[in-house]
Amino acid sequence: MPVNIPPLSPEQLLPIQGVTLGIAEAGIKKPGRKDLLVMVLDEGTQVAGVFTQNRFCAAPVVVAKQHLAQSSIRALVVNTGNANAGTGEAGMQHAQTTCTELARMLNCTAQQVLPFSTGVIMEPLPVDKIVAALPAAVSNGKTDNWFAAAQAIMTTDIVPKAVSRQMQLNGKTVTITGIAKGSGMIRPNMATMLGYIATDAAITKDALQNMARFVADHSFNRITVDGDTSTNDALIIAATGKAGNTPITATNSAEFTQMQQAITDVAAELAKMIVRDGEGATKFITVQIEDGRNPAECTQVAYAIAHSPLIKTAFFASDPNLGRILAAIGYSGIQDLDINNIQLYLDNVLVAEKGGRAVHYREEEGQRVMQQAEITIRVVLNRGNATTTVWTCDFSYDYVKINASYRS
Amino acid sequence: MPVNIPPLSPEQLLPIQGVTLGIAEAGIKKPGRKDLLVMVLDEGTQVAGVFTQNRFCAAPVVVAKQHLAQSSIRALVVNTGNANAGTGEAGMQHAQTTCTELARMLNCTAQQVLPFSTGVIMEPLPVDKIVAALPAAVSNGKTDNWFAAAQAIMTTDIVPKAVSRQMQLNGKTVTITGIAKGSGMIRPNMATMLGYIATDAAITKDALQNMARFVADHSFNRITVDGDTSTNDALIIAATGKAGNTPITATNSAEFTQMQQAITDVAAELAKMIVRDGEGATKFITVQIEDGRNPAECTQVAYAIAHSPLIKTAFFASDPNLGRILAAIGYSGIQDLDINNIQLYLDNVLVAEKGGRAVHYREEEGQRVMQQAEITIRVVLNRGNATTTVWTCDFSYDYVKINASYRS
Repeated sequence: MPVNIPPLSPEQLLPIQGVTLGIAEAGIKKPGRKDLLVMVLDEGTQVAGVFTQNRFCAAPVVVAKQHLAQSSIRALVVNTGNANAGTGEAGMQHAQTTCTELARMLNCTAQQVLPFSTGVIMEPLPVDKIVAALPAAVSNGKTDNWFAAAQAIMTTDIVPKAVSRQMQLNGKTVTITGIAKGSGMIRPNMATMLGYIATDAAITKDALQNMARFVADHSFNRITVDGDTSTNDALIIAATGKAGNTPITATNSAEFTQMQQAITDVAAELAKMIVRDGEGATKFITVQIEDGRNPAECTQVAYAIAHSPLIKTAFFASDPNLGRILAAIGYSGIQDLDINNIQLYLDNVLVAEKGGRAVHYREEEGQRVMQQAEITIRVVLNRGNATTTVWTCDFSYDYVKINASYRS
Repeated sequence: MPVNIPPLSPEQLLPIQGVTLGIAEAGIKKPGRKDLLVMVLDEGTQVAGVFTQNRFCAAPVVVAKQHLAQSSIRALVVNTGNANAGTGEAGMQHAQTTCTELARMLNCTAQQVLPFSTGVIMEPLPVDKIVAALPAAVSNGKTDNWFAAAQAIMTTDIVPKAVSRQMQLNGKTVTITGIAKGSGMIRPNMATMLGYIATDAAITKDALQNMARFVADHSFNRITVDGDTSTNDALIIAATGKAGNTPITATNSAEFTQMQQAITDVAAELAKMIVRDGEGATKFITVQIEDGRNPAECTQVAYAIAHSPLIKTAFFASDPNLGRILAAIGYSGIQDLDINNIQLYLDNVLVAEKGGRAVHYREEEGQRVMQQAEITIRVVLNRGNATTTVWTCDFSYDYVKINASYRS
């Protein structure tokens, strides 16, 4: 079960003026399961996106990147159950067809539609089923539909993931609502497997694209479940401009920074929800590396710890076999690391220093922290001022079970 | 259970003139379990070694490297049950004490002894138990004791790992015997968790050290179980010179090449045994990357596949969810990779090409190969002439089980 995700109700999610969401059952997944989302954006909405760095990126990712570069976007269409990745030329045509058919219904061009897919890789996309379900999705579109939208994009997710925030910007109330999905194949590289955030703030396209990169780097790019970077990762931010604020243009303005921080907060919350609902997760683990020489080396150490199956299984078992963390620090790739200068903490318990176990460390203390559902692994490198935080989960029988039977 | 390791009997292992092996029960592990090995080398034996690149390398590794650089080696001492890693200054003293005490019994200097430890990390080494058991290990030393030695160095290994080979070298019969241990925390970087190979061939120390590096790179450095590089990895090669061949000195001689290949064969066989006995392994998987631009990029792709928990769990389930392999190729980090030029094979079945599933691929074919205990994943990059092979295993419930309860 997900680790400490509070129950979500539809009324917690605030509509964004200028965004309507419609869902339908295309029949790609099991019968009775909503698997298609159409998000329609009012004219004038600015859209920015960051996408997976996986070279085998999915057909819809290729198409979405092209459309985003060329046009003002009017709609997003998302199917689950099939990733349309590793599908060659036919996959590209299917992604295009989806855009063309939706555009026809919305009286816009195909280039104004961004397609997204998530699910099994290397299976042909059942595009006819998607096209047949588009009218239903368009016709039930409404602004207070974020909860159903969050449900419609789920795959192995146990719970829907959505967050709303409001803030004051130059005397205007601005609202941000975001949804995300993802549970396995999670080690986003520049973005995650499907995150959509919308706001009614007015922001220019260039400023928004700048913001999107920062947001991804400080949220979805800080999480890992299994170290597998998906073929379909995408984070999309849409700004409808309906809040009536003076449009944000300059990236060095106070409004830009304020807005960027608010969207990052929403994104980080969604990213952490993905980890909390990571496949088989029973614990939520924050890996915090401090006093490194630069952010890159902190990140290296953080991911060495966050990806180690030995560490993740020990946390699953609540077994303070913490020498495994020292081993991961040691093989993380920092050549001139002096192990005698490092401190390792579990929450506030000092576990190791001076190259070995701390003199006052008692295993009962480590055991106590290990039994918690939320744990911070803190490594102080003592060689600079840089810091990185990465969020991950433990590794349980259920991870193997889920992934040994995902398609069956 | 280990994947296709044929049963080993003591008489298959050939003694090496000049090497005696004694074992004892020091009581570090469970009662009744041999956990101490002393290997005594005749004077004139040349010894070479390669050690872990982990920065948190164990105290015995630090000491062994120093001794190997300074002295002609007369003995090796190995304990299991405790890695003496992450043990700070006390750990260094314990490793030194072990050498001093053994040297006293053998009438050599402490610098002529190499210490090794394997087991739990960050626990104090019970050095008194080791010292107390040394006389028993020394007194039962004999040349035909390789089988018992292979058993004595096991930790989570299910079966002992040992190989013997004979060859003709300039009209003389030369024998090579090697043992190794390792099952988890296996992603050797320059050497593996304890491999010892001895030969009666005559080889100079410099030539042997050159050879050791090549041997490690083509055997233990080509395997991975869980991607965790141990703190204690070591590969030691000893050449006693008793075979009577003209000593091998030049690294460009035919004899050097012949000898190097024979030792590499022994090492590669031992390395593959480690994977076959990988924690929880049910399948032995060869990952072969062909036609890459250089060996480094082939290795990158090979390890991305070999480390992916999603791929490893799919193989455990015999589920041909092979799009996960495309995803791993895609995120392996080759920036200019053209996915349309790649072919993916499972054994001889062409699975994917031109960026998607191969036209004639049938899932039954993939399914058939997946059910085998031995599978080759072959990726043809079509951008050069370089090739790499990496050996790994699948990822099962038992991996989680073993590592969630290793210390209890």
